[in-house]
Amino acid sequence: MNVKKRIIIIGALGTMGKYLAEAFEHEHEIVRVATKSGEYQVDITSANSIEEFYKKVGEFDALVSTAGPTFVGPWESLNDKEFRKGVEGKMMGQINLVLIGQHYIKSKGSFTLISGALTYEPQLNFANASAANGAIEGFVRAAAIELDRGIRINAVSPTVIENSPQYFPYFPGEIPVTMKQLEYGFRKSIFGANTGEVIKLY
Amino acid sequence: MNVKKRIIIIGALGTMGKYLAEAFEHEHEIVRVATKSGEYQVDITSANSIEEFYKKVGEFDALVSTAGPTFVGPWESLNDKEFRKGVEGKMMGQINLVLIGQHYIKSKGSFTLISGALTYEPQLNFANASAANGAIEGFVRAAAIELDRGIRINAVSPTVIENSPQYFPYFPGEIPVTMKQLEYGFRKSIFGANTGEVIKLY
Repeated sequence: MNVKKRIIIIGALGTMGKYLAEAFEHEHEIVRVATKSGEYQVDITSANSIEEFYKKVGEFDALVSTAGPTFVGPWESLNDKEFRKGVEGKMMGQINLVLIGQHYIKSKGSFTLISGALTYEPQLNFANASAANGAIEGFVRAAAIELDRGIRINAVSPTVIENSPQYFPYFPGEIPVTMKQLEYGFRKSIFGANTGEVIKLY
Repeated sequence: MNVKKRIIIIGALGTMGKYLAEAFEHEHEIVRVATKSGEYQVDITSANSIEEFYKKVGEFDALVSTAGPTFVGPWESLNDKEFRKGVEGKMMGQINLVLIGQHYIKSKGSFTLISGALTYEPQLNFANASAANGAIEGFVRAAAIELDRGIRINAVSPTVIENSPQYFPYFPGEIPVTMKQLEYGFRKSIFGANTGEVIKLY
């Protein structure tokens, strides 16, 4: 049986975050966090904003991030400036949630970050996400051997998801991950004992 | 038989770059590039510096990067600021060498970037490199399906190398990659026909 946990969901109003919040709220306390709405707000592109957020939100058992802004668009437009969208968003945004959050999370707590199949299965227009995902996956493996107090960290890696049909044309031939599969991936990380794992859903 | 190529080596005065330059210079024209010395200088943490460098250096067949500054040190000291060493250095430095260099390289030219085993085999003190490596590997796979004019891109991934014994204590149990193995990895990328590959030497 799972003991009731206090679970923070970053990106709680997005397609993934909304579903996960509803899936877990029957048994757990969910803290919905978004950039400009939700119960708490945080701008993950700012380390100061993350620090302020953790000071306000109080103790928690698990942090789930589904927040992954990246540049999506033609390769010809991908320059240093556009690349920063993924660097500051999906990459450093999530990494800073861990580097700072490790000082606020309960012992034996868990961080679950979002990656994606693009790390290994590239698609046109998504090079920025491929790089950000790769960074998250490398970081998760390294952080797992560094974090103390029994704190765990994993990443969930879906491909295009069932509830985002607007992206299907960009992922030809990819079988969409169902919302239930996505939920199971996060369940494995939050309630399991694994650490340093990239949980592939595809 | 290999046709004589003009090969740019970024980081040409480092342990890896120096060896590769000497290994290839018997058959090819080598352009040695470093931050403050070498035939040409470039600060890879600056997109402007990279653009200026390419304007000066002229046509080339292959670009080899062995330049990978990252933060190495205790996890407790790894914050947003220190993480930027790897983000601006090994990650965006190398990525910008490609994003900008694609407009200067000859058709059918190749880019070869440096990654490392830390992507999958983390070690204490090297989380920044694990993330930067992961980013480089994801980027290489994505760039390979985007680059045109037959331009190829690969990454070479060694573990600790034979000629850097000062790092051995940080990589317990890792069998060092020999300089010859390193050379072969780069040879495969420069003179082969593969693209989007992470050439693992460990």
